[in-house]
Amino acid sequence: MMTMMKSAKTNLWVLAGAVALVLGTGLRDLPACDACNVAFGKEMEGARADSLIGQDFKNAVQKQGNLLKGSGLGSGAFQPGADKGVSQAPADEPMLVAQRTASRKKSDDAQASADIATAGGVQPPVGALSGITPGRFFGPVPADWKDDPFIEVIQRDYGLSFPPTSFVPQNTTPDKSFTLTLSEGKTYIGNGVIYEGFVTNGTVPGPLIVVDEGDIVEFTIENKGTVPHGASIHSAYTQTSKYLGKIKPGEKGRIVFRATIPGVYLYHCAPGGHAIPMHVLFGQYGMMVVKPKNATYEMEKRMGQKPDIEIYMIQHEYYASGKDAVEGNPLYTTFNGKLFRYVEEPIKAIPGDFVRIYFLNVGPNLLSTFHIVGIIWDFAYWQGNPAMVWPNGQTVTAGPSDSWVIDFRIPPDEGAYTILTHAVGSASRGAIGLIVAKKDQERDALITPEGLKNTPEEMAEIEKKAVRVISPFHPTSFDKTAKFMPGTRAVDVSIIGNSYWPKIIEVEPGTEVTWTNEDVFTYLEGEFAGIHNAGGSNADGDYFTTPLLAHGESASHVFEKEGEYDYTCAPHPYMKGKVIVKKPDLDLSSLTAGKGVNAGSGYLLPLAVGAFLIALFSFFRSRDRQK
Amino acid sequence: MMTMMKSAKTNLWVLAGAVALVLGTGLRDLPACDACNVAFGKEMEGARADSLIGQDFKNAVQKQGNLLKGSGLGSGAFQPGADKGVSQAPADEPMLVAQRTASRKKSDDAQASADIATAGGVQPPVGALSGITPGRFFGPVPADWKDDPFIEVIQRDYGLSFPPTSFVPQNTTPDKSFTLTLSEGKTYIGNGVIYEGFVTNGTVPGPLIVVDEGDIVEFTIENKGTVPHGASIHSAYTQTSKYLGKIKPGEKGRIVFRATIPGVYLYHCAPGGHAIPMHVLFGQYGMMVVKPKNATYEMEKRMGQKPDIEIYMIQHEYYASGKDAVEGNPLYTTFNGKLFRYVEEPIKAIPGDFVRIYFLNVGPNLLSTFHIVGIIWDFAYWQGNPAMVWPNGQTVTAGPSDSWVIDFRIPPDEGAYTILTHAVGSASRGAIGLIVAKKDQERDALITPEGLKNTPEEMAEIEKKAVRVISPFHPTSFDKTAKFMPGTRAVDVSIIGNSYWPKIIEVEPGTEVTWTNEDVFTYLEGEFAGIHNAGGSNADGDYFTTPLLAHGESASHVFEKEGEYDYTCAPHPYMKGKVIVKKPDLDLSSLTAGKGVNAGSGYLLPLAVGAFLIALFSFFRSRDRQK
Amino acid sequence: MMTMMKSAKTNLWVLAGAVALVLGTGLRDLPACDACNVAFGKEMEGARADSLIGQDFKNAVQKQGNLLKGSGLGSGAFQPGADKGVSQAPADEPMLVAQRTASRKKSDDAQASADIATAGGVQPPVGALSGITPGRFFGPVPADWKDDPFIEVIQRDYGLSFPPTSFVPQNTTPDKSFTLTLSEGKTYIGNGVIYEGFVTNGTVPGPLIVVDEGDIVEFTIENKGTVPHGASIHSAYTQTSKYLGKIKPGEKGRIVFRATIPGVYLYHCAPGGHAIPMHVLFGQYGMMVVKPKNATYEMEKRMGQKPDIEIYMIQHEYYASGKDAVEGNPLYTTFNGKLFRYVEEPIKAIPGDFVRIYFLNVGPNLLSTFHIVGIIWDFAYWQGNPAMVWPNGQTVTAGPSDSWVIDFRIPPDEGAYTILTHAVGSASRGAIGLIVAKKDQERDALITPEGLKNTPEEMAEIEKKAVRVISPFHPTSFDKTAKFMPGTRAVDVSIIGNSYWPKIIEVEPGTEVTWTNEDVFTYLEGEFAGIHNAGGSNADGDYFTTPLLAHGESASHVFEKEGEYDYTCAPHPYMKGKVIVKKPDLDLSSLTAGKGVNAGSGYLLPLAVGAFLIALFSFFRSRDRQK
Repeated sequence: MMTMMKSAKTNLWVLAGAVALVLGTGLRDLPACDACNVAFGKEMEGARADSLIGQDFKNAVQKQGNLLKGSGLGSGAFQPGADKGVSQAPADEPMLVAQRTASRKKSDDAQASADIATAGGVQPPVGALSGITPGRFFGPVPADWKDDPFIEVIQRDYGLSFPPTSFVPQNTTPDKSFTLTLSEGKTYIGNGVIYEGFVTNGTVPGPLIVVDEGDIVEFTIENKGTVPHGASIHSAYTQTSKYLGKIKPGEKGRIVFRATIPGVYLYHCAPGGHAIPMHVLFGQYGMMVVKPKNATYEMEKRMGQKPDIEIYMIQHEYYASGKDAVEGNPLYTTFNGKLFRYVEEPIKAIPGDFVRIYFLNVGPNLLSTFHIVGIIWDFAYWQGNPAMVWPNGQTVTAGPSDSWVIDFRIPPDEGAYTILTHAVGSASRGAIGLIVAKKDQERDALITPEGLKNTPEEMAEIEKKAVRVISPFHPTSFDKTAKFMPGTRAVDVSIIGNSYWPKIIEVEPGTEVTWTNEDVFTYLEGEFAGIHNAGGSNADGDYFTTPLLAHGESASHVFEKEGEYDYTCAPHPYMKGKVIVKKPDLDLSSLTAGKGVNAGSGYLLPLAVGAFLIALFSFFRSRDRQK
Repeated sequence: MMTMMKSAKTNLWVLAGAVALVLGTGLRDLPACDACNVAFGKEMEGARADSLIGQDFKNAVQKQGNLLKGSGLGSGAFQPGADKGVSQAPADEPMLVAQRTASRKKSDDAQASADIATAGGVQPPVGALSGITPGRFFGPVPADWKDDPFIEVIQRDYGLSFPPTSFVPQNTTPDKSFTLTLSEGKTYIGNGVIYEGFVTNGTVPGPLIVVDEGDIVEFTIENKGTVPHGASIHSAYTQTSKYLGKIKPGEKGRIVFRATIPGVYLYHCAPGGHAIPMHVLFGQYGMMVVKPKNATYEMEKRMGQKPDIEIYMIQHEYYASGKDAVEGNPLYTTFNGKLFRYVEEPIKAIPGDFVRIYFLNVGPNLLSTFHIVGIIWDFAYWQGNPAMVWPNGQTVTAGPSDSWVIDFRIPPDEGAYTILTHAVGSASRGAIGLIVAKKDQERDALITPEGLKNTPEEMAEIEKKAVRVISPFHPTSFDKTAKFMPGTRAVDVSIIGNSYWPKIIEVEPGTEVTWTNEDVFTYLEGEFAGIHNAGGSNADGDYFTTPLLAHGESASHVFEKEGEYDYTCAPHPYMKGKVIVKKPDLDLSSLTAGKGVNAGSGYLLPLAVGAFLIALFSFFRSRDRQK
Repeated sequence: MMTMMKSAKTNLWVLAGAVALVLGTGLRDLPACDACNVAFGKEMEGARADSLIGQDFKNAVQKQGNLLKGSGLGSGAFQPGADKGVSQAPADEPMLVAQRTASRKKSDDAQASADIATAGGVQPPVGALSGITPGRFFGPVPADWKDDPFIEVIQRDYGLSFPPTSFVPQNTTPDKSFTLTLSEGKTYIGNGVIYEGFVTNGTVPGPLIVVDEGDIVEFTIENKGTVPHGASIHSAYTQTSKYLGKIKPGEKGRIVFRATIPGVYLYHCAPGGHAIPMHVLFGQYGMMVVKPKNATYEMEKRMGQKPDIEIYMIQHEYYASGKDAVEGNPLYTTFNGKLFRYVEEPIKAIPGDFVRIYFLNVGPNLLSTFHIVGIIWDFAYWQGNPAMVWPNGQTVTAGPSDSWVIDFRIPPDEGAYTILTHAVGSASRGAIGLIVAKKDQERDALITPEGLKNTPEEMAEIEKKAVRVISPFHPTSFDKTAKFMPGTRAVDVSIIGNSYWPKIIEVEPGTEVTWTNEDVFTYLEGEFAGIHNAGGSNADGDYFTTPLLAHGESASHVFEKEGEYDYTCAPHPYMKGKVIVKKPDLDLSSLTAGKGVNAGSGYLLPLAVGAFLIALFSFFRSRDRQK
């Protein structure tokens, strides 16, 4: 018994595929999303072409035309980087400061300097902009780029009085190479809590990547997961989506670019479309730093030294449901992956130390006002750019993906300096740490931001002991079963943030459950789309499935048979929910069924009324007889 | 049966008026708010003078004294701009780049330059402040201003080394004239969704307005709606509220000012008081840009050219209830009015293009960290001021009403560049778009931010097909009916953000519904006040009404008779709610009523107990007899 | 009947102590927290050493080692400032612009100037950084500091081309002294609402403190409350936690430091650990301004005058529950303590006035985009630093603890200028005010930010009349009693933000209530810890208590006996909740108890079924007999 609202026609063969996948009985060689979405697209262009979303869909296809072939967001052909000769340079962990992998000619740099000197008639202004000069090692345009289709643009850019973009031909030999592996995974985040979500090189956040301004950098993105992944590298001022988007499970993407602007950058998973925000919300991100070569941070100039301690610090959030993720209500907010990590393991310093913090607020939703009790910055640099010197300040303010380099000194006094976001609601959820200053103690010169990694053995032990497991998109011990008033016959479940809400419901037989898709991105296919459905079965093989739902659409199923129905979303197979169909402790439906009483709502009332009337009747009759 | 809590006395003749208005049977010639609020004010000064809010109210009246006569927030006399000779210059749509409507003497500019040169002994500093010079066309003070009551202030300001305010006498002949019309309205926002709220020139956002630094600008604000509207123009550094506040339905306001500071500005509806935040939350806003004349954006200097593409981009939010609006939990976040507008219709560019984005985050609640995948800005300018040059950056950070001009180049590579707010929870609700770069394609030089407008015929068609309609302040198909446990006899409804929450409730006869006013602004009158009530009737003419409620106050009504009661707020007639009074499917009250059983809570239990006892008694008696 | 989940062993003697404290029958001489937490710590190191949190706990202890002795966050010995000779200089209220309390030698300043002139080989850059010069009065290092253990660091810092830290030896004679008293308290916040939370000198916000750049400042923090308090002073660039953290009730802390960086700063309660965010959320904060001596705000230079009006303006939030506080959903947002304070009492100005606003967004959670309708700033200074001049702008953007100095002129026109945060959801909760400009009116030159203080008599009167009382951590008239479906036998209560959620529940006898600790900071002891429990009794002396709960842990109690159980948290005795155990209006449990029917869930069903069956049986038997 299934109904589909606001949809001209159910896409039935999609359902068949979805059911088969859910039940694990067929079509296994087809990725879940492809079967469903080809059908969805056809339906949009066919039976549902006249609906509003059908029209929007059609407009989008027409207007995008062939523009999107190969792009991360487009509907065009997928060309994984693996086809293009991905280098297999192993990644250094945890901090990926790779070695130069090729001997780029030193004479390039010298020549570049000379070239710009002649090219640059325009002088940068003084003061705050003093750092913005064309990189002395950014030119001239190498001779073998001359056949590039955009050689004129490239030549123009290399002649300007500010840096060119990050573009280099994809066959350029890199100075440094990095590999990131993306997958689903779990990690221990402290205070007894395990997080199950998406991970980068096995951790949340992923590894730190450090290069120098001017480096030619190669990234290889390897999908070791079960759904498409991808990457956005914020330090790359060049086309990345078509190289790093839509990387299928088991495949790789690759890009080569030049890091032209010093600063502190986010990198994150970006498969394309709806999956871009989702994969960030689920935990796939990390920090990349481009160290300045062409400029010096003000503090270094004035101190005449490099920092004694460099701290790479990421603030980020963990979500226990897609709904919370979309609405920006994290269960935890942490520095570098673990709850109160630097309370448990304070960062050590010596009074007088010159400390630098590379700070990145990943978010992905909340604002951070980063502060250290007892510290006023000496200098902060917006987004880590040495040209953007901000003197002093009790805080730096950072929305999601905002970053700073912060320089300060440890005052000449021993004691603890508390690190926190001054949005203290967040701080209380995990984003507090300590720098502890003491004379003559040993301290680490380097604190890196990647999350903690446990061995499989450690993880097995942790799983046994965990107080709770959380996950944005599938039920865990943390998720409470939603129950309803006795006699409830209609229950709503939202689909939002690639999760069902509530994830687990307990209903009586005969209840109609209605799923409504609150995700909005009704374009593209599978993982890239905000199109969802629900399909599953109980242990007896009773199964159900709904059609794929565009935004705002609903579909219902009446659950007649008891059992625990585990269900999933065909385009997003990691999305999981559960319907527990269970009679109340004393269920009357079997009693009343034979008597023609419909097991609808209010069985209790007719029963009580019946009992009352019969009893009354019996009473009066017996009294009559008594007389 | 009505009770009023925490109020010394019900304001009964107000109720009579409110009821009459609700029922449409009288007092039609009086605006809803006036009758009610005059009474409320009298009550505050009379019977309720001793209450805390009465004292606050009295203090406010005393302390404001005559200060507020004619101001947007004050309680003084209303003087609509229409009385002052509003010009009828038609607005250009969609981008209101008006023609000069008067031939201002060119010699003014020349003279201004000379004047400042002699006046300015103070030199601006170099560097980041290099753009802050007195406008060369801002002086001298015209001779015919000499009788202005503040001529000394004006003369001082024109002699300073930085721009004067925007003040000009209201009879000054403008260079450019614009008309904005404000009303309630609906608009299609994509993905099958219709939004019903408040609109500007029929759209959300309203039209783009562009002027040049130094222009004398005339705004006419025309209220074509049914409740008071008004305007705040952020580019005007001068008194605006008394000219543009409190514009009654059918009337107009008008202001003339000089746009002195280049930048990207918000304009929005601002009727006064509580209505200022409310009308922004409901959708009345748009972008105004003052283009620099006296300075050049750094990027233009260095590129030696104007941008190839100019994109005016507003990020803003849609709310489905006043509660969500006040709490900052939008259902959708979009760029330029429509969900994923530039995914459906990507912005076209050519590799190498110099692109400028005029970015405004309207909010009205969420932070945006605007980012484009694959782009690092070349230069960003805080609030669009060419004097505030920020080099590079992966994001710009913008709270509500914050703005930027952003300059960058399309890298020399084809592909899609994804636009989004990196607060990705918001992004997933609609704020993602695409710039697609391709060689030799045709592209628009101009993208404007006003929302899409549909013809009445198109809208009729859309309404038939819509998946959902949302509105912050009245029930739509999207709003679910709140139901309660059988036997519930007391139900609470909040009044917040000029809406009832829940908007629709279903209760059994005999249920007491209590409304509590969670809006806080207990001053002023009608639309300008956060004072609310609830009054309405069912189809049989059974009606109810509550007194007007100050903040935190509650009033109750017991609904005895069945029916659907549509109700509204007397001061805010667009606020709508519904009480469905309905017996349960098998309601026992009629059965038991004749037997003296009160249809209060727990009818089920006594019934069952009665049945049980009678049955037991019957059983034993019958057994006794059996013996 | 009590169960403890996920905990190896209950810490029973702690319970005994907790119960005794709750019931007021013993251990009164031991502070609540100490007894409990010593036990908790022992349990963590003993019986629970093998749990995850036990391991984290142990790691923390090991890694912190002796580092934290005496620090605000550490577990070391507590050394209250009172032991060190706290000066008893009385605080000036409301604005604490203290008099010099000692005659610092003027020759110090002259010498400092000379000293730096020779020391500073490094020249600061021009432009935006022009204000960053070493304070001319910051040197040389006084001779009597020579034995300081960090004299080399101090000497290095005094020789740099930018200011040293705020460090001075604690026995330095201060120029100015201030005393802040911290306690729990209540305050009237307008619109009929009383707030009960934590206060500073009796108000929310606390008093304004103003000093000059270079002043040596002494703070005495006096705990007049019943739980530990403390302080973080953001203007102090030096170790503060070990002097001002962990101040016990009745004791004092004291610090002396030099205010080296001009600006607008937050100060707030910071007892240590979990209590840092909690006490800020509960209302203990204020503004401190360090006025520049070594630089001049750009506007003053260009106007050639000081401001006509100086407004010190704090935006801050009030919370009605710990849950709302942690999640950032305030019930009210205000300027300077009271709802719409400056609507009720507008700030007066004269057209042409030069107005300066010292703006601090305390938060503690929401972003503010501060704006005034009709005003574009002339100059804003980030965090109040005269070196960070931002020209113009329609807003300043401020996260929690962010600040600005804002300079502008009142335009030459009378009327109201509306002050608000342009995150207008917040504005509608209370953060709107007015500046009203009128010719020749008298106006105050100074508006200070501390909250309003009422006399005890006034407060008694206000309490009688209040529309509502709110509090983050104990039940008030505002808190609704959570009720559940008849027959519910299991109810969950969260512990979050040092409050129970829901605060008041009503359950039937036999219901199992489960508390889960959602606060995360499972370290330290008592007030400093996020460790909670629940224990209390009804009027009959029936009591219950749960073990102390680490993050994520749960404990349950089955309430068999009727009554109102007021309960509290042993480590945080101001946290209060209530369990009302009450039979339904017609409760069957006494009837059925004698008949062996367990008063578990579903008593209604068996009763109805029984009645039905008996009735049927009676009916048929009686019918049989009839025959």
